[in-house]
Amino acid sequence: MRQSNTLIPTLKESPADAEIASHRLLIRAGYIRRVASGLYEFLPLGLRVIKKIEGIIRDEMDRAGAQELLLPILQPRELWEESGRWAKYGPEMMRLRDRAERDFGLGPTHEELITDLVRSNISSYRQLPLNLYQIGPKFRDEIRPRFGLLRGREFLMKDGYSFDRDEEGMADSYGRMYEAYGRIFSRSGCTWRAVEADTGLIGGDVSHEFMVPAEVGEDFIAYCSECPYAANLELASFRRPSPPSIGDMIVEKVHTPGQRTIEEVSSFLAIEAHRLIKCLMYLVGGRPVAVLVPGDREANEIKLGRGLGTDEFRLFNEDDWKRLPGYLQGYVGPVGLDGTEIIADWGLEGVGGMAAGANDADHHLINVKEGRDFTVNRFADVVNARAGDDCPRCNGQLKVEAGIEVGQVFQLGTRYSSPMRCCYDDENGVTRPMVMGTYGIGVSRLMAAVVEQSHDEKGIIWPVSVAPAVLHILPLNYEREERRQARRNSTRHAWRGAWKYCSTIARRAPASNSRTPI
Amino acid sequence: MRQSNTLIPTLKESPADAEIASHRLLIRAGYIRRVASGLYEFLPLGLRVIKKIEGIIRDEMDRAGAQELLLPILQPRELWEESGRWAKYGPEMMRLRDRAERDFGLGPTHEELITDLVRSNISSYRQLPLNLYQIGPKFRDEIRPRFGLLRGREFLMKDGYSFDRDEEGMADSYGRMYEAYGRIFSRSGCTWRAVEADTGLIGGDVSHEFMVPAEVGEDFIAYCSECPYAANLELASFRRPSPPSIGDMIVEKVHTPGQRTIEEVSSFLAIEAHRLIKCLMYLVGGRPVAVLVPGDREANEIKLGRGLGTDEFRLFNEDDWKRLPGYLQGYVGPVGLDGTEIIADWGLEGVGGMAAGANDADHHLINVKEGRDFTVNRFADVVNARAGDDCPRCNGQLKVEAGIEVGQVFQLGTRYSSPMRCCYDDENGVTRPMVMGTYGIGVSRLMAAVVEQSHDEKGIIWPVSVAPAVLHILPLNYEREERRQARRNSTRHAWRGAWKYCSTIARRAPASNSRTPI
Repeated sequence: MRQSNTLIPTLKESPADAEIASHRLLIRAGYIRRVASGLYEFLPLGLRVIKKIEGIIRDEMDRAGAQELLLPILQPRELWEESGRWAKYGPEMMRLRDRAERDFGLGPTHEELITDLVRSNISSYRQLPLNLYQIGPKFRDEIRPRFGLLRGREFLMKDGYSFDRDEEGMADSYGRMYEAYGRIFSRSGCTWRAVEADTGLIGGDVSHEFMVPAEVGEDFIAYCSECPYAANLELASFRRPSPPSIGDMIVEKVHTPGQRTIEEVSSFLAIEAHRLIKCLMYLVGGRPVAVLVPGDREANEIKLGRGLGTDEFRLFNEDDWKRLPGYLQGYVGPVGLDGTEIIADWGLEGVGGMAAGANDADHHLINVKEGRDFTVNRFADVVNARAGDDCPRCNGQLKVEAGIEVGQVFQLGTRYSSPMRCCYDDENGVTRPMVMGTYGIGVSRLMAAVVEQSHDEKGIIWPVSVAPAVLHILPLNYEREERRQARRNSTRHAWRGAWKYCSTIARRAPASNSRTPI
Repeated sequence: MRQSNTLIPTLKESPADAEIASHRLLIRAGYIRRVASGLYEFLPLGLRVIKKIEGIIRDEMDRAGAQELLLPILQPRELWEESGRWAKYGPEMMRLRDRAERDFGLGPTHEELITDLVRSNISSYRQLPLNLYQIGPKFRDEIRPRFGLLRGREFLMKDGYSFDRDEEGMADSYGRMYEAYGRIFSRSGCTWRAVEADTGLIGGDVSHEFMVPAEVGEDFIAYCSECPYAANLELASFRRPSPPSIGDMIVEKVHTPGQRTIEEVSSFLAIEAHRLIKCLMYLVGGRPVAVLVPGDREANEIKLGRGLGTDEFRLFNEDDWKRLPGYLQGYVGPVGLDGTEIIADWGLEGVGGMAAGANDADHHLINVKEGRDFTVNRFADVVNARAGDDCPRCNGQLKVEAGIEVGQVFQLGTRYSSPMRCCYDDENGVTRPMVMGTYGIGVSRLMAAVVEQSHDEKGIIWPVSVAPAVLHILPLNYEREERRQARRNSTRHAWRGAWKYCSTIARRAPASNSRTPI
């Protein structure tokens, strides 16, 4: 491979939409090119990196006993209706209708297809466990594609699926994939962290994400400085401090003209923010629900959804406030909200001496006590953890960092096998649904994550294991005739010499796959 | 890889829709599975064959100096409008609209995308020639998907594109690809034939198809038994015999009650079919045109389209015959068709003593002579060649066989570079359009073609070069304890022994890549 014959269209200037290093550097160095929003071409150097990553994945998947296959991109609507995801996936799934007026989706993941394959061909406990994977393009119509390969609409993914007889078998398959994923990211030259994660649209109970720490990451991870606890901020729990003991002072109504936000009220009443009760009004399935969180905390809607047991909810909008004048924007509070369901974060359990809205214009209440002045229908974990919070598992404290999600593993259980009747007969002839796991790696995203972790002001520093080439021979002083002669006659000799030299160097340097998880 | 751990869902019965051997055997042996009409899954064994074929393709492409890259499947409508193919491709292109209401096509080929890539990055003659290829899924919404992998709607393809400074450079790139394609098909274990071909929706002037002869092939090839001439029947020409000299007998009108077809008239008048003039009525851009062919020949609409210089034409339908009563169905003939354009096959030039419709119910004319009794506006090659016809290049005779098209190469010229302004500056600073070639291989179709050529009543006989595995070790008499012990302890030793044995066998057998083109 000669540079002069290879399409490497380098750019002097960064593209206008490239906000982060991997996007900027991969385009400027001629690895990728943008075709349209969220759609990229992999040019010769970029594809070489992708193939190195794919090689590492195949190697580790084979080692873990998984089998590669290839499923079609077009997926019949009927299968997605069996799992209930045709309706649920919404506009993020790209869809088309063929000339015979049948509907297809472009696979964002392939649980339905693989479950259909397995239910049609596996019927006995003797044929399980089974672990199948593929590597290929996936499609998600992101509402806001950005950051180059990090959030594209057509991207390369490795997706794998395990089928077991029971929960124990699933846990075993899950463990093997978890181990293999760690090795894949280490061998690709990343530092990474596995964190507990939400299961989202895929479903299931237990899930871990593999995060590559990077400033530009769109995910946030809370992890303990003392123990192995780590979780996506969407899910991270923390131990709430015991409420300070406060004297039983009586509730008092104070005049707070024009003071609506936490900052305004806190400053006006000279009360610290965490002593205020923030009362957020939500419509849940069309019904108003008050969500209480400490004044210094951010509500987390993914946690809230879990607390509510539904994803059909939203914050009041301007119309809702007008339509329901009983709730007074800026002054709503839990005291006297009779008939309205109240959900509160655990951090408000047993608190006293708090300030809250008075449900009266320009007024707040002070000395409010939970349990005495208002009743919470349900406590739940509905706020984000933050750095310095107490670890839920030990006496350490949490730290928070940004990361790029490069992989996720799920214990699905029977989320797909039950509705789709993917069953087997056990030793006693009893028919049981298979117990599934699903495992994904963003292959093209991993390429970008490697660059985020490994670059400097001069450009990308590829780990050897995924570098597009191990050697780049530059004949210096090329104007001298003997050099040119050498290139013509003995490229092979030059290459051997250079390779020998580099192998020596490489033996001295730490191997890139000796990197270990954080 | 152990058979007991691998998903190989074999079937005892052939699927109902499997009409041909490759479809039947690949499904029955567990290589592929049908998901929906024209959509197939490649199961572990099938994917191994695909990867062997891809490996051969990559090897030969690299050897020929081509560079691999990867283009997105989703293609913006705007690019396809520049080439004019957004409208032209019709319902065979699958299309979708994204959530921002922008139109995309699912790539059936990638000329537009690659031309856009090259025009944006190449500007000097010093950067040419360039040869780029990719391997990946392609989409065509076939009106009648069938024959398993032979005519699918989502299939694997290798598509390549060359960019040169001039026609000479293009011919050179084309020649290199032609050679490489031959090696690829030979190494995959096929016998094959390269034939001259029509350029269809892709465009360009010169094209060859690579055909794998097989009874079930949907293409027909005419080839000379004496010289290298070979062409798709859509294009194959042949030398017409000189018209026999016939006395100048006067035209006579004969009564042929109820005799409409060639067979009926030929039998009723006791005149051989080739002495009849078949007069086909077409609507060409809304205008009636008479197309004359010898009575014993089939008109070929692809040739006719080339003769007419348009693809907007169709045979009269029932409505047309009613609407235009001047043309009398069953009795239309060239004599007296004043004002109607007449196109005739070269085989009718100078003929005399022919029978033809009399444009009068229940009557035909005999002793009709071209040039005396009617005037042809244009002669063209509009009929199919058939076995026994004279070769257009030598004194040999043509044979006809069925084949599966596994690859096609095109000299595109400036078909895309001119409308899309993909230009370079030459040595003198003059801006010129690049001269392109395009090259395709149906990867999944090739897998099926190999099976069509290489199977018997017991199943598939894989050529070693594409076999899913070279060795299959079966421990016989497995009930004996020492065999089981051997499997547990010394799989590696067993494998080495077996490999040594097989290598000996393989050295005695002809290597699969020693097969040569026909």
